Amino acid sequence: MITRIDLNADMGESFGPWPMGADSALLQVITSANIACGFHAGDPDVMAQAMAQAVENGVGIGAHPGLPDLQGFGRRRMQIAPSEARNMVAYQLGAAQAMARKADGHVRHLKLHGALANMAAEDATLAQACYEGALAVDPDIILMVISGTQQAFAARSLGARMAHEIFADRTYAEDGLLMDRRLNGAVIHDPDQVCARVLAMLQAGAIITAQGTHLPAQIDTICLHGDTPQSVTLAKALRRAIEGAGVMLRRFDGEYAS
Amino acid sequence: MITRIDLNADMGESFGPWPMGADSALLQVITSANIACGFHAGDPDVMAQAMAQAVENGVGIGAHPGLPDLQGFGRRRMQIAPSEARNMVAYQLGAAQAMARKADGHVRHLKLHGALANMAAEDATLAQACYEGALAVDPDIILMVISGTQQAFAARSLGARMAHEIFADRTYAEDGLLMDRRLNGAVIHDPDQVCARVLAMLQAGAIITAQGTHLPAQIDTICLHGDTPQSVTLAKALRRAIEGAGVMLRRFDGEYAS
Amino acid sequence: MITRIDLNADMGESFGPWPMGADSALLQVITSANIACGFHAGDPDVMAQAMAQAVENGVGIGAHPGLPDLQGFGRRRMQIAPSEARNMVAYQLGAAQAMARKADGHVRHLKLHGALANMAAEDATLAQACYEGALAVDPDIILMVISGTQQAFAARSLGARMAHEIFADRTYAEDGLLMDRRLNGAVIHDPDQVCARVLAMLQAGAIITAQGTHLPAQIDTICLHGDTPQSVTLAKALRRAIEGAGVMLRRFDGEYAS
Amino acid sequence: MITRIDLNADMGESFGPWPMGADSALLQVITSANIACGFHAGDPDVMAQAMAQAVENGVGIGAHPGLPDLQGFGRRRMQIAPSEARNMVAYQLGAAQAMARKADGHVRHLKLHGALANMAAEDATLAQACYEGALAVDPDIILMVISGTQQAFAARSLGARMAHEIFADRTYAEDGLLMDRRLNGAVIHDPDQVCARVLAMLQAGAIITAQGTHLPAQIDTICLHGDTPQSVTLAKALRRAIEGAGVMLRRFDGEYAS
Repeated sequence: MITRIDLNADMGESFGPWPMGADSALLQVITSANIACGFHAGDPDVMAQAMAQAVENGVGIGAHPGLPDLQGFGRRRMQIAPSEARNMVAYQLGAAQAMARKADGHVRHLKLHGALANMAAEDATLAQACYEGALAVDPDIILMVISGTQQAFAARSLGARMAHEIFADRTYAEDGLLMDRRLNGAVIHDPDQVCARVLAMLQAGAIITAQGTHLPAQIDTICLHGDTPQSVTLAKALRRAIEGAGVMLRRFDGEYAS
Repeated sequence: MITRIDLNADMGESFGPWPMGADSALLQVITSANIACGFHAGDPDVMAQAMAQAVENGVGIGAHPGLPDLQGFGRRRMQIAPSEARNMVAYQLGAAQAMARKADGHVRHLKLHGALANMAAEDATLAQACYEGALAVDPDIILMVISGTQQAFAARSLGARMAHEIFADRTYAEDGLLMDRRLNGAVIHDPDQVCARVLAMLQAGAIITAQGTHLPAQIDTICLHGDTPQSVTLAKALRRAIEGAGVMLRRFDGEYAS
Repeated sequence: MITRIDLNADMGESFGPWPMGADSALLQVITSANIACGFHAGDPDVMAQAMAQAVENGVGIGAHPGLPDLQGFGRRRMQIAPSEARNMVAYQLGAAQAMARKADGHVRHLKLHGALANMAAEDATLAQACYEGALAVDPDIILMVISGTQQAFAARSLGARMAHEIFADRTYAEDGLLMDRRLNGAVIHDPDQVCARVLAMLQAGAIITAQGTHLPAQIDTICLHGDTPQSVTLAKALRRAIEGAGVMLRRFDGEYAS
Repeated sequence: MITRIDLNADMGESFGPWPMGADSALLQVITSANIACGFHAGDPDVMAQAMAQAVENGVGIGAHPGLPDLQGFGRRRMQIAPSEARNMVAYQLGAAQAMARKADGHVRHLKLHGALANMAAEDATLAQACYEGALAVDPDIILMVISGTQQAFAARSLGARMAHEIFADRTYAEDGLLMDRRLNGAVIHDPDQVCARVLAMLQAGAIITAQGTHLPAQIDTICLHGDTPQSVTLAKALRRAIEGAGVMLRRFDGEYAS
């Protein structure tokens, strides 16, 4: 039985005149925020505001680097060489650290965004390059990885501090990977079902697949979304359910990989 | 008589497939490098290389933030609000710090680029906003300012560490400002004349105008250029002349404004 | 008494994942649409959709070129040389023509956006450069100009087809220019007042200033906004008021300057 | 025996302050120019100049659209949906048409650039989407395709005007595709060898593989490069060799696919 858990969500995804997300509402729910760094979303002004809000709400701050593809929101896969990955993650982390410091905050974790995250979940070489870029900037940064993927493998092999993530509203296949978002049933919309499922996974200390198989897994944080009013409602419901079950909501510690 | 001086030049101004500048040659001449941060020039890969070269050559590293105008190379004036200036300078400084750290280096100074620098030389409010952004990220950073301008005024009023800059190959008007680059005689091309003029200013501890007036000024560093083969030749000639005159070439200390 | 009038509004101002504006609702109200061209807003996918919607609704299509400043939404003034203005307007017009043709439509007018429009309203040289760029691509394009400004002067001097624009919800100063948006009373929010004022101007064939002075002016089109639910409501109210007064709503003809 | 041939090269690949290529020298050699459209290289000012130079030299003008990846010069593969491909090609073609018209020229062909071209050579669906985008803008445009690839298949299936391209300095595998650029011998540097090989292919009306196999192919144009002084020398040598062999150098006609 897992007795404490972190809730994380992506934030600071506005750009210039275009707002996105319900950052203020989400900050009431989550314990860690992943803040976009200007490549796939966010700009210096948006970041400044997101950092200030995160500090104000006492939420853990993370850098959320993505691919240099604003139009595609970092969701289109790109062919990125390891050295490019290393440099683009380091650059974005540095920018996030500066904006955090300016808001009297501190970047304590890093989570990859979008297609960069998806590619790194499958490709340990790319994941390692991304994480090397981050660790070269801050050796103590906590790498938030998708539990059971090549992201986790790469972070562990680098001896980094880690936080393992599961998804609240996504279905898992038998191999522990997320089912393709386009498949029927891949995304769970019913709040009751989402809550029951997350509680079962916390109780089991395992990812539970669509077929009910238990895959023992480290679970440190749960990924929420805040792009629609419904998703904020769902996030709140999940928080209540978790607290009701006696699980403590607290930021992950980010212990070193062992 | 000024007995020690720093030589600085802009570097890392390539972008993607497009090279610019003679960085390797300049690094043999200068003691401080101003490295572009990705807004007007430079990208994470270019920055990584420039930082590594600077570290290798034992040259002082500076962040060189500019306007978000790649096509215009940050040379077209833009209407920037103080809060925007604060955030864009902080963001770029953070990115530079990260790339420096990745190369086992450290950003010790900051110099504004292009139109942002020109506007800040005239507008103390803008200069102050830029420098506040930098100091919020690193209170110990040395602000490299154009001697005698609103840049210097703003940095001093913030109580920051400072380095005062003069230009090797540009003519000064009676008010101590640079003559407009488009005017006849505004840029000095003859190496002998450049060297004689710089030595005279160091000896006098003053900016010497086109008409010969001496304007007492603090002089900590001399700005060189490296965009043409001739400019590298000129830089080398000036370094020889300065050393020949018994002036010590060394990075500025960046003393706190008094 | 003006017996027919066009209603225009800006559209296609989304970008990548970020929506903006109530394009579908506005298309029920307006007779001409100004579609962003990818520099300050819009991208090829957004443009494709906006063009298709405009064609479907039988609305006149205009290119709406702006400054290359996505983060600033083209609202920050930039120092643009005449040759740069010429080329950036031509480029954006060409892109708009292609996207229109792909949707079986045709770009019949061009209106400058944001800071580019404001600068051109004051600076006949810049306005002329922008319009030369447009006319070099299509000599028959109708230039939508702000009535009474240097835009109108420049378009007329080029012998171009023109449509003169007034603003529904903005107050005019005694010189016929818009009052600064930041001044008290510069923007009119009350729908009844907006409608009464527009009808009075149509009846008078003149711009009516805040002090009540009548400045005879050509009026071919009225600029509406659609960025808020209130603005769409206002647009609908104005359309009803105009039709109720027996004024025909129809696209401008774009007669040649005489 | 092929009795007439076109020579093509990429041009207008500078950006902002960064020059690239030897456009002036190449224009003395080639009969068709592929001009970058602002996504992977080129900007409105660069395009204006390239178009003017092409017109001045009587060279056929082509649009050369690429992926929206300036830093990567359009050489990094990206995951592009067919509708995105359609729109990005249409947009870039329109921009090129406008800049050509402004220079009293006319875009008569279109060639895909970099990773977009490589992906389209393998993927008929993507190739078709790109070409549909082009043909929706101009049904008479000539599609320059890499002979023997899915590009050619897609263009033919659309009933478009076509020009088939071979490469002067690249080795072909047995399946008619280019050998991977990173393999030994994939790029031919010796001018004599390049000339002999091209003449042999023209004589045979076939692509000749590394092993000497003749693959009958339509050959309308030969791709040259101009990024290094050597490549310009090579281009000139090849032109002399072709003319010396009695082959007429002339733009392709772009006959409709049959």
